[in-house]
Amino acid sequence: MTLLDRVIARTLPAVPKTVVRRVANRYIAGETTDEALRVVADLNARGFRATLDILGEHISRWDQANRAIENYLNLLEEIARRKVDSTISIKLTQLGLKLDPQACLEMTRRLIRRAAELNNFVRVDMEDSSCTTATLRVYRELRREFSNVGVVVQAYLRRTLDDVCALEDLRPNYRLCKGVYVEPREIAYPDMRVINRNYALLLEKMLRNGSYVGIATHDEFMVWEAYRIIRELKLPATAYEFQMLLGVEETLRDIILAAGHAVRIYIPFGRDWYAYSVRRLRENPRLAGYVFKAMFK
Amino acid sequence: MTLLDRVIARTLPAVPKTVVRRVANRYIAGETTDEALRVVADLNARGFRATLDILGEHISRWDQANRAIENYLNLLEEIARRKVDSTISIKLTQLGLKLDPQACLEMTRRLIRRAAELNNFVRVDMEDSSCTTATLRVYRELRREFSNVGVVVQAYLRRTLDDVCALEDLRPNYRLCKGVYVEPREIAYPDMRVINRNYALLLEKMLRNGSYVGIATHDEFMVWEAYRIIRELKLPATAYEFQMLLGVEETLRDIILAAGHAVRIYIPFGRDWYAYSVRRLRENPRLAGYVFKAMFK
Repeated sequence: MTLLDRVIARTLPAVPKTVVRRVANRYIAGETTDEALRVVADLNARGFRATLDILGEHISRWDQANRAIENYLNLLEEIARRKVDSTISIKLTQLGLKLDPQACLEMTRRLIRRAAELNNFVRVDMEDSSCTTATLRVYRELRREFSNVGVVVQAYLRRTLDDVCALEDLRPNYRLCKGVYVEPREIAYPDMRVINRNYALLLEKMLRNGSYVGIATHDEFMVWEAYRIIRELKLPATAYEFQMLLGVEETLRDIILAAGHAVRIYIPFGRDWYAYSVRRLRENPRLAGYVFKAMFK
Repeated sequence: MTLLDRVIARTLPAVPKTVVRRVANRYIAGETTDEALRVVADLNARGFRATLDILGEHISRWDQANRAIENYLNLLEEIARRKVDSTISIKLTQLGLKLDPQACLEMTRRLIRRAAELNNFVRVDMEDSSCTTATLRVYRELRREFSNVGVVVQAYLRRTLDDVCALEDLRPNYRLCKGVYVEPREIAYPDMRVINRNYALLLEKMLRNGSYVGIATHDEFMVWEAYRIIRELKLPATAYEFQMLLGVEETLRDIILAAGHAVRIYIPFGRDWYAYSVRRLRENPRLAGYVFKAMFK
């Protein structure tokens, strides 16, 4: 984290919710399934794939997890009914990972089975480092039974290269991102140059191992590195896709799409927009500048 | 472009010509052939090669192109007569590329033929992205007939890696530079880290393909990358040269020469010094600082 990031991370809790909300409107596809699916249809029409994420994480009661599963099952049906091109992304803490990993696994299994029946795909998202081991364990269990499930790894974690080596036998469908949670130095590389180099190393390793990779980045530098690796390995455009968040770096995503690569937009929606928005703010100093202006106006 | 670049680019048109002129004196070897050839002789005496560029671009009438060709033909004769070590560099828009590409090709052919008779070499310069395709097309035609013609590619263009792949069969004599025109993001990488990585990748590709490369850079980082690649490929000092502009990074050019590498200085001269000087200013914020000081003094 740069000094600026630290300042932002410390200041953010003091930002009024109304201001975060104003910023959030750009990154979140509304509160309802209907609003979100209209955003998906619009992006599909412009050539983008989508993945839908119902916001929410770190629940404290099981009824919350049950509600989340019902919402996701309903979302899968609606995706199929409307014939839009979208997968779903889930966070295991929203499905009770911290309450009972075994129960969480069983709930998630139910979701993935239904997705398989509907010919859809479930991305198991990665959260802060307190969830990494448990999430990878659940993923391994699920991957034994299903092929329509993918995982996420974060290039900023010191452990990730080991994790990727350990997962090689599963040839996972990956999303590779830099990582956006605030982590201690012992756990995550603080130096962006290291993270960038690690990202490229991980990407090459995954692709060489035959994994399909969702190259999740908004950084033109990483896009260039990905192009270089793709070219070097002579990969067809079906072996990977680029992934970007809704509302971020739209010019770059258009450039990538126009160059003939698949691009999937990660679309969060739902009522629990606050934690997600704060992370988006934290990683984007320019946005934070906007927030500061809005606060003092 | 960084924010500073944008500020400079917007401010430059407001800089009085007299101020640009003062800065230009450092980068331009006078207005006449005689002045320029004295600068060449002086650089030769210190161990540098040269290439001469008669300033002027984007002409609007054919008589201007005819005059430019006559000036270049005369320059070739003078280089031979005085036995100085200098090639010539031409800009195709100065020879009517935008008026009539076919007529431009024929004019250029005449020049290159005369250069071949005099055992000299013609570098076809690269200009803004509106000229890239046409310039490469003219180059390909000329290269079929002549071996004493080279081309320039710019590492900041997204298309350049494809262009270099497409030119492989010609094994071109290249000048590789970063690129200095203001281009939209869809066309050129805005991120300097990407441009640097791309530069190194292109350089290695060209050298591996057996091309002679003029490594045109004032950036010590790129010089280091070039050294690394040269060493890795075990290239003799005859397989490449470094190239720098007159008046820029003179300490670095002396260091490179002293290390046993050939260094060619690009020497612009002539009456049309304005557009060239503005580009030099734009790419060098330190220079721009000098200009601002000069303006408000």
